[in-house]
Amino acid sequence: MKVITLRREFGSGGRELGKRIAESMGIAYYDKEILEEIARSSGLAEEYVRSIVDHSPISYYPITFGHTFSFINTYNENYVRLLRIQENVLKELASKSDCVIVGRCAELMLGDIPSFNLFVYADMESKLHRCRVKAPEGENLTDNELIKNIKAIEKNRKRNYVSLAGGDVGMENYHLCVNTSGKEIKSLVAPVVSYINAWYSDK
Amino acid sequence: MKVITLRREFGSGGRELGKRIAESMGIAYYDKEILEEIARSSGLAEEYVRSIVDHSPISYYPITFGHTFSFINTYNENYVRLLRIQENVLKELASKSDCVIVGRCAELMLGDIPSFNLFVYADMESKLHRCRVKAPEGENLTDNELIKNIKAIEKNRKRNYVSLAGGDVGMENYHLCVNTSGKEIKSLVAPVVSYINAWYSDK
Repeated sequence: MKVITLRREFGSGGRELGKRIAESMGIAYYDKEILEEIARSSGLAEEYVRSIVDHSPISYYPITFGHTFSFINTYNENYVRLLRIQENVLKELASKSDCVIVGRCAELMLGDIPSFNLFVYADMESKLHRCRVKAPEGENLTDNELIKNIKAIEKNRKRNYVSLAGGDVGMENYHLCVNTSGKEIKSLVAPVVSYINAWYSDK
Repeated sequence: MKVITLRREFGSGGRELGKRIAESMGIAYYDKEILEEIARSSGLAEEYVRSIVDHSPISYYPITFGHTFSFINTYNENYVRLLRIQENVLKELASKSDCVIVGRCAELMLGDIPSFNLFVYADMESKLHRCRVKAPEGENLTDNELIKNIKAIEKNRKRNYVSLAGGDVGMENYHLCVNTSGKEIKSLVAPVVSYINAWYSDK
């Protein structure tokens, strides 16, 4: 069974790469489908599910009871419940057929299910360029605003990872790390697929 | 012109991968040849050259003059001179023909000469295994001693890099990072070469 997880930096083109890899290998591709499935299983609205599973439970709110300072986490209960559902959904998808799973910390949550873990990154110039090309019409952010947004998204994702992994997640969690700076994503598909196939044939 | 630099973790099989990539692409391979060339250009013995360029100039020796504590670095003068020679040797080799250059901080020292930078790494279990297989006959280190050696070599290499790069060198300095854990190096050659060729054809 070939299960390819893909973690990517925002703006690196990782999602496009994942989709093209799945097409090229003729296997399933899961991305937004995962959130939909979590929403279905939990009976909660998709947007609400996203707002919870995309944030680590570290965002505490200080509250005063009398003279005592207390910290509570308003998301905590649903967060834990939804993570459990997310884990089950990921494991179910990964057991069903060969697939590419983008994001969702799949490389951490699949547990004993073996996977080929890909990390996709790029330099800031490339990420800016890709964000500009993909921006919705009418978005007129300056470079500095866009960089600030990209960094904020990365910071949040990283916090989420650190919280799930119990520490930072580095290169050692990935079998291949691909720098897409200045490259057309489609030009990288064939060699990455050939790498993945070689990796699976030398088990 | 294709110039492939390769930085590797000790025990990751990076050198073997570099050599096989050069063979497969039919291009020059530089590794020990660089030290020989620096020794020739400087008129210094190869072992002495290695002892200097393989260490960052941070190893100061405290010396007392009267009541004043002073730090001097016995290597400093030759270090700077030899780094300059190393830079020239690397640039010369990279300008002569397509090649693979292993180690020597080539990705930092080539300056304006464009290169494809490869990083090769592995988990500790794999590195231990590879060191065992390649150990000279009669070497009977325990796992812990071997791990200590591997970490010491990595620490020294890293110090050297940080000193040359003026900061830590991360993923962003590399176009592709390859995890060789549990893999036969020769099984990775074809896909890495195909990646490098794809990268060069999408310039």
